[in-house]
Amino acid sequence: MRPFKRLISLEQALSLTSTCAVPTKKTERLSVVEAIGRVSAEDVVSKMSVPPFPRSAMDGYAVRARDTFGASKLKPIRLSQGEAIRVGSVPKKALTKDVCAMIATGAMIPKGADAVVMVEDTEVEGKAVLLHESVHPGQNVSRKGEDITPGTKIISYGQVLNPSKLGVLAAVGRDEIRAYAKPLVGVVSTGNEITELGSELGPGKVYNINSYTLCGAVSANGGQVRMLGIVDDTVEDIERVVRENSDCDILVFSGGSSVGERDIMIDVLERNGKVVFHGIAMKPGKPTLFGTIEEQLVFGMPGHPTSCLSNAYLLLTPVLRKMARLPPQRPACVPARIAKRVVSTTGRTQFLTVRLDGDIAHPAFKESSAITSMAFADGYVVIPADVDLIEKGERVTVYLL
Amino acid sequence: MRPFKRLISLEQALSLTSTCAVPTKKTERLSVVEAIGRVSAEDVVSKMSVPPFPRSAMDGYAVRARDTFGASKLKPIRLSQGEAIRVGSVPKKALTKDVCAMIATGAMIPKGADAVVMVEDTEVEGKAVLLHESVHPGQNVSRKGEDITPGTKIISYGQVLNPSKLGVLAAVGRDEIRAYAKPLVGVVSTGNEITELGSELGPGKVYNINSYTLCGAVSANGGQVRMLGIVDDTVEDIERVVRENSDCDILVFSGGSSVGERDIMIDVLERNGKVVFHGIAMKPGKPTLFGTIEEQLVFGMPGHPTSCLSNAYLLLTPVLRKMARLPPQRPACVPARIAKRVVSTTGRTQFLTVRLDGDIAHPAFKESSAITSMAFADGYVVIPADVDLIEKGERVTVYLL
Repeated sequence: MRPFKRLISLEQALSLTSTCAVPTKKTERLSVVEAIGRVSAEDVVSKMSVPPFPRSAMDGYAVRARDTFGASKLKPIRLSQGEAIRVGSVPKKALTKDVCAMIATGAMIPKGADAVVMVEDTEVEGKAVLLHESVHPGQNVSRKGEDITPGTKIISYGQVLNPSKLGVLAAVGRDEIRAYAKPLVGVVSTGNEITELGSELGPGKVYNINSYTLCGAVSANGGQVRMLGIVDDTVEDIERVVRENSDCDILVFSGGSSVGERDIMIDVLERNGKVVFHGIAMKPGKPTLFGTIEEQLVFGMPGHPTSCLSNAYLLLTPVLRKMARLPPQRPACVPARIAKRVVSTTGRTQFLTVRLDGDIAHPAFKESSAITSMAFADGYVVIPADVDLIEKGERVTVYLL
Repeated sequence: MRPFKRLISLEQALSLTSTCAVPTKKTERLSVVEAIGRVSAEDVVSKMSVPPFPRSAMDGYAVRARDTFGASKLKPIRLSQGEAIRVGSVPKKALTKDVCAMIATGAMIPKGADAVVMVEDTEVEGKAVLLHESVHPGQNVSRKGEDITPGTKIISYGQVLNPSKLGVLAAVGRDEIRAYAKPLVGVVSTGNEITELGSELGPGKVYNINSYTLCGAVSANGGQVRMLGIVDDTVEDIERVVRENSDCDILVFSGGSSVGERDIMIDVLERNGKVVFHGIAMKPGKPTLFGTIEEQLVFGMPGHPTSCLSNAYLLLTPVLRKMARLPPQRPACVPARIAKRVVSTTGRTQFLTVRLDGDIAHPAFKESSAITSMAFADGYVVIPADVDLIEKGERVTVYLL
């Protein structure tokens, strides 16, 4: 068994993984509907004006503003009614002096008109309309191109496509966009004791947990998961997986924390790429191996389910989001007070799961091999490496799971 | 044109929509992989122990703890080496006095052994092993059922299935779970001026924006979208859509803010269900209609793209999440200072979009008909109805888009 030579800090580990993570260059054409939450791989410049014609911003009457000057509730101005202009239609004739045209919100302003009086400020009297307010030229009218003029860059390369960005694409008639592909993350569980869900559990065996927790964390952070199942921990089998999945942007192995297995992963990395670090001063998550094979990142996560998943949160998702060109996650967090004194190991960052009862955080960590350390918790507290004690009642920030 | 009779406050509108929103009762069986982010529709009770057998928490040597008492670096204790126990296998024989068995993390503790000495505290000397530390009974051993005992409720009805919850399901071998179905949201654009993406734009016409922004907001908040395209604003066509989509949990119409169209929606609601409110004291988003047809919620959103989308954020997503049984959204927000004085209308809640430059929030709202009011913004500020002025430099909370 090769011992850890030197543990590096979590901060150093994050810096090294980030340096190795190359933002994806793979792109794909997506429909506007599919593109939600994705990252644009192009600048989109509008070829058209939005609105494409001057239109009414209100239900009311299109007028020549100067015909309305001086109108008030006490001294309304009377105009004769011309045509009624519905949305989606083209006015039949130009507006002439002292004539108004009933117009709907979004309908085309007729030639000759330059303003709209809101319906609330009018009163119909036979074939005439009384105006109770005057309007200035341009009032209640959206000019052609007021929203978007031709040549306006409406989407920039690298922007995340939120609902309003889909809307601005739709506004100029774009029904698809080139977006960055989701990084492909191959997820592998190793170990002779691991049994796939749906199979009977033999003596000495346990079910595959890590593939499912990793799958959840990856898919929630912009990655596409390739489930690679359970692989024997032999150099031949691990190398076969590496060779067959060279199209993955990231390979995540979990397990390999038992006698000899870690050595296998190190050997495979040294033969096919390089080991960047092995061993992080954190708890849980210490026996973590990280390396690269060309631009592919390879994580060797501890087999303990809570160590594996806390590593996924602290180490994997930041680089996954960088490769996906997504902004860093803004983890939801709440302030709380710790329910009892917590002693931490100086020199090791601690990932402490907690249950919340109002604003009181009760430590929920049992052991790193227990999935309930995490599954029965509401969130976690990160205790920095230089802190060795949190007193009962001290304020902490709880990151919600 | 039927005028608004009485505007209600945003708070009243939220209370009314929430009262009408019935959490979904529809459930479906999902694989553990599909279940990420979904809400459990069952209590899951473990039938098995996890771990299913006593196992080693460390790489090292399984021992009888009493054989190690008194061991130290200066006075190591020497045990003879028995079998090596790999993970996934069953120890061949019980451990006898003064014998130790090399054991991997996760491997089964042999009968007779009750503790594990970490490999770091040992030294191999021929066929013997020197122990530099003593261990107490149970040390570095995970008892059978230490993580989960049979009869433990591992998932409760109504819990959101995050990665660790998938992990605890996997731990007990469950490969599927009954989860609540995503509420089905039918999205309809109405109006003669609306043209579908991919078609040529005729005179007086504009592209369909709202279907796409609504689709994005719904799918990001636990809903399943049924895109119903563009529908003519006649009672017959709207009633046909309502009739054909009675399986939708929510129907969202947008448009109908032009002359006569709002009346059509009101007529359809009154004939088939009821109008709950019409008109909210907010800006934008005032001409909003809300009603129910049996348990189905029906929104008549304003046609202006920014009004429609701000309504989706403020009104639609809270009820959608309630129906989906998801917790209220925790919108990401940042503190900022407003770049210039903003005057708001007293008595109306204002949804003010802003662009962020560091911690300075520049108002980005052009007009509610302009999608760029939202698409070129980074977030929004909600100005309460009883605030009519924000002075330059005042602190505001910006909800990120």
